[in-house]
Amino acid sequence: MSFTLAELAVRFGCSVQGDPKTAVYSVGTLAAAGPDSISFLANSKYRKHLAATNAAAVVLTPADAENCPVPALLSDNPYALYARIAGLLQPEPSAPEGIHSSAVVAPGARVAESAIIGPNAVVEEDCRIGERVFVGPGCVIRCNSSVANESRLVANVTIGQNVQIGERTLIHPGAVVGSDGFGFAKEDTGWLKVPQLGTVRVGNDVEIGANTTIDRGAIDDTVIEDGVKLDNQIQVGHNVHIGAHTIIAACSGISGSTRIGQRCMIAGMVGFVGHLEIADDVAITGLTMISRSISEPGIYSGGLPADEAVRWRKNSARFKQLDDLARTVKGLEKVIGNRKKHE
Amino acid sequence: MSFTLAELAVRFGCSVQGDPKTAVYSVGTLAAAGPDSISFLANSKYRKHLAATNAAAVVLTPADAENCPVPALLSDNPYALYARIAGLLQPEPSAPEGIHSSAVVAPGARVAESAIIGPNAVVEEDCRIGERVFVGPGCVIRCNSSVANESRLVANVTIGQNVQIGERTLIHPGAVVGSDGFGFAKEDTGWLKVPQLGTVRVGNDVEIGANTTIDRGAIDDTVIEDGVKLDNQIQVGHNVHIGAHTIIAACSGISGSTRIGQRCMIAGMVGFVGHLEIADDVAITGLTMISRSISEPGIYSGGLPADEAVRWRKNSARFKQLDDLARTVKGLEKVIGNRKKHE
Amino acid sequence: MSFTLAELAVRFGCSVQGDPKTAVYSVGTLAAAGPDSISFLANSKYRKHLAATNAAAVVLTPADAENCPVPALLSDNPYALYARIAGLLQPEPSAPEGIHSSAVVAPGARVAESAIIGPNAVVEEDCRIGERVFVGPGCVIRCNSSVANESRLVANVTIGQNVQIGERTLIHPGAVVGSDGFGFAKEDTGWLKVPQLGTVRVGNDVEIGANTTIDRGAIDDTVIEDGVKLDNQIQVGHNVHIGAHTIIAACSGISGSTRIGQRCMIAGMVGFVGHLEIADDVAITGLTMISRSISEPGIYSGGLPADEAVRWRKNSARFKQLDDLARTVKGLEKVIGNRKKHE
Repeated sequence: MSFTLAELAVRFGCSVQGDPKTAVYSVGTLAAAGPDSISFLANSKYRKHLAATNAAAVVLTPADAENCPVPALLSDNPYALYARIAGLLQPEPSAPEGIHSSAVVAPGARVAESAIIGPNAVVEEDCRIGERVFVGPGCVIRCNSSVANESRLVANVTIGQNVQIGERTLIHPGAVVGSDGFGFAKEDTGWLKVPQLGTVRVGNDVEIGANTTIDRGAIDDTVIEDGVKLDNQIQVGHNVHIGAHTIIAACSGISGSTRIGQRCMIAGMVGFVGHLEIADDVAITGLTMISRSISEPGIYSGGLPADEAVRWRKNSARFKQLDDLARTVKGLEKVIGNRKKHE
Repeated sequence: MSFTLAELAVRFGCSVQGDPKTAVYSVGTLAAAGPDSISFLANSKYRKHLAATNAAAVVLTPADAENCPVPALLSDNPYALYARIAGLLQPEPSAPEGIHSSAVVAPGARVAESAIIGPNAVVEEDCRIGERVFVGPGCVIRCNSSVANESRLVANVTIGQNVQIGERTLIHPGAVVGSDGFGFAKEDTGWLKVPQLGTVRVGNDVEIGANTTIDRGAIDDTVIEDGVKLDNQIQVGHNVHIGAHTIIAACSGISGSTRIGQRCMIAGMVGFVGHLEIADDVAITGLTMISRSISEPGIYSGGLPADEAVRWRKNSARFKQLDDLARTVKGLEKVIGNRKKHE
Repeated sequence: MSFTLAELAVRFGCSVQGDPKTAVYSVGTLAAAGPDSISFLANSKYRKHLAATNAAAVVLTPADAENCPVPALLSDNPYALYARIAGLLQPEPSAPEGIHSSAVVAPGARVAESAIIGPNAVVEEDCRIGERVFVGPGCVIRCNSSVANESRLVANVTIGQNVQIGERTLIHPGAVVGSDGFGFAKEDTGWLKVPQLGTVRVGNDVEIGANTTIDRGAIDDTVIEDGVKLDNQIQVGHNVHIGAHTIIAACSGISGSTRIGQRCMIAGMVGFVGHLEIADDVAITGLTMISRSISEPGIYSGGLPADEAVRWRKNSARFKQLDDLARTVKGLEKVIGNRKKHE
């Protein structure tokens, strides 16, 4: 499949610099793209590759256009325009519609005719599978759950009972949505399991990464609002609520009943303790522990940068004396202040 | 299904306040429960919702009873009593007994008649599956492993060869029990794999969270004792030993050969280096690195609380000078001390 | 199966101390081995168990030989020699060759005759499965991927489309290779998915742990070179490049486009931010955040050791004042320095 710059400009409402008949067949990076490919410049780090690019054309901002040695598409958001072009040039591989003969679909499940149920997938009783939904090989959808139109479960995904998945939501392999929350009552003889009776409600246009786990609520539900993007290996505890368009990088964990606002940007390996409230528009850098609620938008950090090991050991040994050190300094200040008074 | 407070009081040995004929059909939170539901008050945070609750009845302590506007069940451990009532009102959905036609059970596997082997599950040679065991859809149990009475593998669980799972143990989707330990011998040409010949022994009444991984021992076995509760995405290295009734929150990792005592309470994202001994009754807060053995019960911490990013950057830059700072302070003390002597 | 020390010495090119006709049937630890087993001493921690061992024989260094109470095999690398013997005495269980009747193999997939495709596995169109490859139960290999000779996918592994797996590579249950990278373009209305068009190329002799996830590249590929060993629950972002023979412990995460050199040794729960360059022969201790490139080989750290909670709280509260503290000390130095000048 190929498109000319003119066709792309019309389709996506952007302008062309250079020959509008230039045809592009695929995408590539500035450094590696060949003469059939369209590339993009969206990060100033890569500007140095622009002059020597072999790409047929480049997507970039009007400000970068004058330095572009080849034809260009101009956009104020070149990364988004590139994303649309890439989706057009290299669409998802299609699979035959219908239910594969090796899939097990319970008689009481309702599956849209345009849906695809892949090999060895399992759809239990009372599930509703919408139009053009893709349930990939090895996926399991337990009873009474619903997956709305055009959502895709790639492979080996597990959806627990009663879970609701919205439209156009993409769930990667190994993800688990609707496992039991972690709730136990302490007794003299040990821990008594508290039944987890809520479920998970996932909105539209959500992405859930590979091997990410989202627990069902204890009584009320765990909620993932529209447009939330979760990377791989994220843990979402019971009764967590994640606001619309919040994006969370890999390996982060959110303890039970914490509410995260809308449009937050959370880096990797961030841990939230339970029962917190995080405001809208909060950004958190990597390896941070969030142990208190955050009421103001802003950027928050908590990860110490690495150091050469010997120096690190010395400094971290001093950390154990930090309170003593601060007291000593206070004492010295007092001595010197007193002398000042006496001088 | 419904029960009167009188029936519940008899069954669970607690006392009733108000009309014992009050019937309850479901459970709910104090804030959201409707007039058919029973709620509970076990955490003082939620006491503010008691006065206005619409619940039919509330489970609470005798101390809270006088402020309860509706009938009540009284217990010194209301959370545990609530858990029992919730399990009674909303039991696990049952599935048809027997082996699903799409499951693959090796001829040499022994499966109890009351066990359920779900769609597309695989049970290999020489496995023993006990009474009323549930092996959910997509689960794989490799050769010569055993799952004792009433244990449940929810879906897409993988059990390696020779693994032993006790009674009434619950394993959530995506969990892996019996993957190879991580053992390599260094040679000039790279890393040589060390065969992992031990297995995993999991006790009774254990819970293993979604996508948690437990490696088999190198020579001896990895052991999870009775009543241990492991949350999602926990990593347990080879030859680890976890004592009875220890509870570990999500995303924690335990390196090889570490022994954790009984009744420990370990928060999320805690990392243990290998070959440690952790005493009984140790509690550890979130995002802590445990790099030495702990011989005394108590509470241990290691995660720095987050701060606003600009302030954080300043403080963490100073961390790199902490040893120098401490030396400077020592120097100042000496100067001032000397002067004192001379005064 | 059993071997005499003489047979082992010939096969592995090492020397015997004591009776070369001593036969060994299995392996065991110095402390627990019975009289049919061979044990090894490779870690000085365990030297104390040598005198009382009941093993039939022990693998150890010439330096330890004189204290060995039983016959011995001598090697400068006893751990590697032990690994080879263990592999010989307890080989992997074999499975019947061929494609299990419940597996779903697309007509256009090419599967070597000596390969094993286990129960309920799925191999999609245009895949190439090499000689003696093992694709275990529940594994899914999506279209146009290849798995080269003698590689093993244990169970419930997911391989995305177009992925290349080298020879003799071992992939543990629940691992995902070739999930989408995490790439989104920001627009006013939310996040727009950026198609992930690269793939993953995994070399020879690689090991990938249980529930580890490796994302496909955005345009170019994610690359895992020969001999890399990845433990469980590791996250590898898109376009990451891991150099040959690097070994990474569990729960570590590598953000997109970071390049890690050869022969690095990375402990557990280490987090790398994106777009870094890490030199060859770098070692990193546990729970460290790597936020800058590392150009020199050496050991790097960043995890604070745990402390008793009350003391920890005091010290971590002081951390929030560390910059102020350092300024105060600078001020005191100045005052004292000035006085010195005036004295």
